[in-house]
Amino acid sequence: MKKVPIGIDGIDVMLGGGLPFGRCTLICGGPGSGKTTFCVQFLYNGVTKYGETGMYVSLGESPSHLAENMASFGWDIEKLEKEGKLIIVDASPIRTLPGEVRIGKLNIGKRDFSMLSLIEGIRNKAEENQVKRIVIDPITTLMLQYPDVSERQNAILDLMETVTDLDITSLMTTELRATSLERQTQAEEFLSHGVIIFHRFTELGRVIRAVQIEKMRGIAHDHELRPYKIMKNGIEIFSKEKMISGT
Amino acid sequence: MKKVPIGIDGIDVMLGGGLPFGRCTLICGGPGSGKTTFCVQFLYNGVTKYGETGMYVSLGESPSHLAENMASFGWDIEKLEKEGKLIIVDASPIRTLPGEVRIGKLNIGKRDFSMLSLIEGIRNKAEENQVKRIVIDPITTLMLQYPDVSERQNAILDLMETVTDLDITSLMTTELRATSLERQTQAEEFLSHGVIIFHRFTELGRVIRAVQIEKMRGIAHDHELRPYKIMKNGIEIFSKEKMISGT
Amino acid sequence: MKKVPIGIDGIDVMLGGGLPFGRCTLICGGPGSGKTTFCVQFLYNGVTKYGETGMYVSLGESPSHLAENMASFGWDIEKLEKEGKLIIVDASPIRTLPGEVRIGKLNIGKRDFSMLSLIEGIRNKAEENQVKRIVIDPITTLMLQYPDVSERQNAILDLMETVTDLDITSLMTTELRATSLERQTQAEEFLSHGVIIFHRFTELGRVIRAVQIEKMRGIAHDHELRPYKIMKNGIEIFSKEKMISGT
Amino acid sequence: MKKVPIGIDGIDVMLGGGLPFGRCTLICGGPGSGKTTFCVQFLYNGVTKYGETGMYVSLGESPSHLAENMASFGWDIEKLEKEGKLIIVDASPIRTLPGEVRIGKLNIGKRDFSMLSLIEGIRNKAEENQVKRIVIDPITTLMLQYPDVSERQNAILDLMETVTDLDITSLMTTELRATSLERQTQAEEFLSHGVIIFHRFTELGRVIRAVQIEKMRGIAHDHELRPYKIMKNGIEIFSKEKMISGT
Amino acid sequence: MKKVPIGIDGIDVMLGGGLPFGRCTLICGGPGSGKTTFCVQFLYNGVTKYGETGMYVSLGESPSHLAENMASFGWDIEKLEKEGKLIIVDASPIRTLPGEVRIGKLNIGKRDFSMLSLIEGIRNKAEENQVKRIVIDPITTLMLQYPDVSERQNAILDLMETVTDLDITSLMTTELRATSLERQTQAEEFLSHGVIIFHRFTELGRVIRAVQIEKMRGIAHDHELRPYKIMKNGIEIFSKEKMISGT
Amino acid sequence: MKKVPIGIDGIDVMLGGGLPFGRCTLICGGPGSGKTTFCVQFLYNGVTKYGETGMYVSLGESPSHLAENMASFGWDIEKLEKEGKLIIVDASPIRTLPGEVRIGKLNIGKRDFSMLSLIEGIRNKAEENQVKRIVIDPITTLMLQYPDVSERQNAILDLMETVTDLDITSLMTTELRATSLERQTQAEEFLSHGVIIFHRFTELGRVIRAVQIEKMRGIAHDHELRPYKIMKNGIEIFSKEKMISGT
Repeated sequence: MKKVPIGIDGIDVMLGGGLPFGRCTLICGGPGSGKTTFCVQFLYNGVTKYGETGMYVSLGESPSHLAENMASFGWDIEKLEKEGKLIIVDASPIRTLPGEVRIGKLNIGKRDFSMLSLIEGIRNKAEENQVKRIVIDPITTLMLQYPDVSERQNAILDLMETVTDLDITSLMTTELRATSLERQTQAEEFLSHGVIIFHRFTELGRVIRAVQIEKMRGIAHDHELRPYKIMKNGIEIFSKEKMISGT
Repeated sequence: MKKVPIGIDGIDVMLGGGLPFGRCTLICGGPGSGKTTFCVQFLYNGVTKYGETGMYVSLGESPSHLAENMASFGWDIEKLEKEGKLIIVDASPIRTLPGEVRIGKLNIGKRDFSMLSLIEGIRNKAEENQVKRIVIDPITTLMLQYPDVSERQNAILDLMETVTDLDITSLMTTELRATSLERQTQAEEFLSHGVIIFHRFTELGRVIRAVQIEKMRGIAHDHELRPYKIMKNGIEIFSKEKMISGT
Repeated sequence: MKKVPIGIDGIDVMLGGGLPFGRCTLICGGPGSGKTTFCVQFLYNGVTKYGETGMYVSLGESPSHLAENMASFGWDIEKLEKEGKLIIVDASPIRTLPGEVRIGKLNIGKRDFSMLSLIEGIRNKAEENQVKRIVIDPITTLMLQYPDVSERQNAILDLMETVTDLDITSLMTTELRATSLERQTQAEEFLSHGVIIFHRFTELGRVIRAVQIEKMRGIAHDHELRPYKIMKNGIEIFSKEKMISGT
Repeated sequence: MKKVPIGIDGIDVMLGGGLPFGRCTLICGGPGSGKTTFCVQFLYNGVTKYGETGMYVSLGESPSHLAENMASFGWDIEKLEKEGKLIIVDASPIRTLPGEVRIGKLNIGKRDFSMLSLIEGIRNKAEENQVKRIVIDPITTLMLQYPDVSERQNAILDLMETVTDLDITSLMTTELRATSLERQTQAEEFLSHGVIIFHRFTELGRVIRAVQIEKMRGIAHDHELRPYKIMKNGIEIFSKEKMISGT
Repeated sequence: MKKVPIGIDGIDVMLGGGLPFGRCTLICGGPGSGKTTFCVQFLYNGVTKYGETGMYVSLGESPSHLAENMASFGWDIEKLEKEGKLIIVDASPIRTLPGEVRIGKLNIGKRDFSMLSLIEGIRNKAEENQVKRIVIDPITTLMLQYPDVSERQNAILDLMETVTDLDITSLMTTELRATSLERQTQAEEFLSHGVIIFHRFTELGRVIRAVQIEKMRGIAHDHELRPYKIMKNGIEIFSKEKMISGT
Repeated sequence: MKKVPIGIDGIDVMLGGGLPFGRCTLICGGPGSGKTTFCVQFLYNGVTKYGETGMYVSLGESPSHLAENMASFGWDIEKLEKEGKLIIVDASPIRTLPGEVRIGKLNIGKRDFSMLSLIEGIRNKAEENQVKRIVIDPITTLMLQYPDVSERQNAILDLMETVTDLDITSLMTTELRATSLERQTQAEEFLSHGVIIFHRFTELGRVIRAVQIEKMRGIAHDHELRPYKIMKNGIEIFSKEKMISGT
């Protein structure tokens, strides 16, 4: 199976070279776990190290905030965007509001997106720009539009199929609610081709961070928890270190 | 009682020879626990070691992805399929969508399956091809169509009866949501003839995997948890090793 | 109070001779805990050791599967049935389906039973055959027909009253969902005259099985947890051994 | 405050002499904890030791079963009843059934009681017989008739007020669902004048029983957990012994 | 900020002199934790030590039972009431019953109160009698009238504002459901100016009681858990002792 | 990225200088954790140390109570308000009441605010007064107006966007319900640019307080838990001390 390197040594070692080509991997983590940083790193390395055009579909952060945040790691997102090597799609207005919301001079959001137009939009922009890597960050807000569990699963599958049909390697982020290793797994984890979890828990008063490849179909991979840190130049994963204790 | 060997030494030892002939066994496990790998191994060994035709009903993965994934273990699924020794049924379009979903040139899934046509389809294809082993992987999506607990139990029973009436030995997979040994058992576990669980939990920072025969009616079997690994050539079960600690 | 021996030494010792005559005892256990085996042993011993006619009302397993399973313990269920010493009632078609279910040549279940016709049926067959011991296994499926808690309790009480009014000693099985000793007790446990629990939990990597008489009105009994095993010739209970540790 | 002795040394010592006169005390316990035994002991001692007429309102057990069960402790309930010293009210038919339930020759229960007629009935019988001690066992079934939390609280309060207005010392039993010391307290516990809990939990493989006076308004009392046993002649409480460990 | 002494040394030390003048403090505790005793002590000391008129709004206990209970601590509630130093409002009939409840000669409760008439009543009686200290015990029953969370919060806020607007220092009691230190905090705790918790948990078989000032806006206070006892003359708090272990 | 110092040494050290300019940070904590104190400290220091006008939007406490509480730390809120350096918006009447609430002479609250008028109001007042720092405390009551999860998320996002669009650095407070480190993270934590948590848990009988920067997009920051205390002059954070143990 063809591998797509993330460009972060530790995780590529754990994956035996990289992510499976053309597949969709779920990135799970709590608030502040570095999910977005990891995903941008995947796109940034794609452009700068491997010459692959990337696309970032933002469902949370505004593009200007994203650029500011990533600048702190020394990554110039806006430059890449201008050069046409990184496509930023601001899908944050996807929200389910009852009717239009306009008060005085204040107009809160355009809210003109929908699930299906999002799929169509991703498809068109990706083909137009010959995109090789896509990040959808996060899918949580999107999923809230589907209160019915069964419909929600279909929505996730439709989104995954769209990017998979285009032979694009993709990451989607989702929220991890539990703050310990004991938890209920989420439906998305069963539906994805692969799942990488960014754990954070507190032990003996210290905050411990660990990355775990929970699942990666078709690829022999490291199953252990490995420590990671958010450094000045992005996420670093220590693929040869072991966790000493865990809950 | 006649036994049907899985062809994985460890588990056949634990079962005293194999699965009970013509019965339905539930395979429970979390994401990345190797449920699908185990099931395909059951079918693959059926064809190559015991000359029995198998059928894989996919309710999750697309057949091409499945083939790719299994190739990593050295199993050529597509070759067996061409030779008529393995029947692959792509039932992944079984989804409950409100109305048709068509947007521009994009047509998301055929969605023409339903529970009863699935049962009918399995029955016809199985008789036509003299199938001896069936895998339905996973039943979770299917079950979501039945929000009422009582109806869901009937759906599971109907599916089990269908394959049982055909004297076919079958495996069905289901998702294990808990990440520790302490959990609530699921209705499917009570309804099945047998239950094999692929546990994964984290202890002292290490990820521990263990297989357990929770239940196997009519067969004296090993009740202990036994370690297993996902190796280059499939799942290996260490039926003589003991777990040292749990929870 | 008159005692009815189960015919398994360990449990009869714990009960000070046997179950209270004409009462209904609940048997709780997880999947694979041996509930059905224990119940059939109660009936089988009734016929072969004490010359009492038994009745097994199956709400889960098909009679042919039951016979196969029990054969593995050396018990010839079908022979006893032919001799009129054991009455097998196949009540598994009791299911709540919306409308008839017929597709092509496939007819899924007769579904002609209902709670009240079941009660009537048990009553008639029991009187006709001078039944002394009844097993209803499991009551769970039946209870699912009553989503309202209050109605469900009445249904359980009606079923219990029916067999109690006939002066028949009975066992009913129910599912134990928790996999540890810490759990919520179920309504059935409060409504029954007696409750025997088949626990299974995992400790230090070992699967531990223990039987406990949680409740037995009107009979002085052993309150401790005692280990049990599922052996070649049925369940064996070690009434003089103590559990060393329990969660 | 006037005290009403229960006649079990251990608990009377813990209460500093007995229950508060004319108040309602809640008895909480799991299945098999001895709630009913304790309550009957309170009534039996009332008659035989203190010459006070008692009334037992049964909402669960049939009177004949109760008599049988109590006979095992050497208490002749039926004799006391014939002598008019113990009034047994069989309120077990209080059930909420939709419509009449009659099938063939089978007539399931009279079901002619209701909450208010129960209150009226208790009042009339108690005044007529100059009852001094009342037991209502258990109130759980009754409470299920009130799905609304607020109405349920009123029903409990109405029942308590009825017996309190009559200057009768009363016990009501309720079910304890948790099997460990960590639990959610129930609304009834806040509404009662007093609460006595019969705990049972499992530790180091041993079943441990402990009685605790959780609350007793207006009476200085022992707050500790004290071990108890169900002996041949009823419940015995060891008011001077301490529990060694508790979860 | 002006302080209002409770008159119990330990807690006044913990509060640095007393409760904040004119504010509303929530008293949380399980059944039997001494919430009512503490509140009455606050009122009793108000009258006898500080010459301040008090008002006790009873939403649970009947006034006569309250007087009896408090007599056991040597407090003559009825005498204070006759002298006009303590106003007792029997608000226990506040219950939401569907329609009138009258059966035969039995008339269950007056049920003529409502939330708004309660507020009006408190206001009028407090102004009329120049009340300085108010206790509302407990607010739980009242809150059950508002199944909607948002409305319930408003009801609590309205009640608090009423007494706060009158420059009266007040206590309200609420039920603590958890029996361990690990719990979910309740909405009332966030809405109150101050929160004092009466914990009770079981450790090493001993019942441990501890008082904790969880919150007290505008006042520097002791944050630790301190042991307390219910003594012959009321609650005693040991503000200089530490708890040794917790959970 | 431009930093906005809070003016509390410990937290500014943890943040590497201060909060990110123009972003919205969530302050989570239990009752009595010092959330409000921390926020007012941020505004007070803004005015007195950095010459920046602040705005406090109160959704819980009345302005007069707030002033009283803060006076205990030596902060004269009302003086700053008169000088026009601190704008206090009393938004506490935002409550969802069914219809008008007027009884006799009593008029409970003005209740004329709504979510959108709040947004409009904040916008106008902030522009008018050239506000640089905003605190909204707490958002919980506001969120209760949106029972639908999806709408609630939009409401939070709208509120955040409003202040973010104005280039104002803001804090919003929310309630932490769990009393241990193990908990479910809340939706607000995922939606915010930054999250600071004020933990309080009990260990070995001692109350332990710790502050944690859970998340701060675009800023390298300290991830550890650090002890804090509520002192006479406000919150003090010990950024160089470690917690020794944490559940």
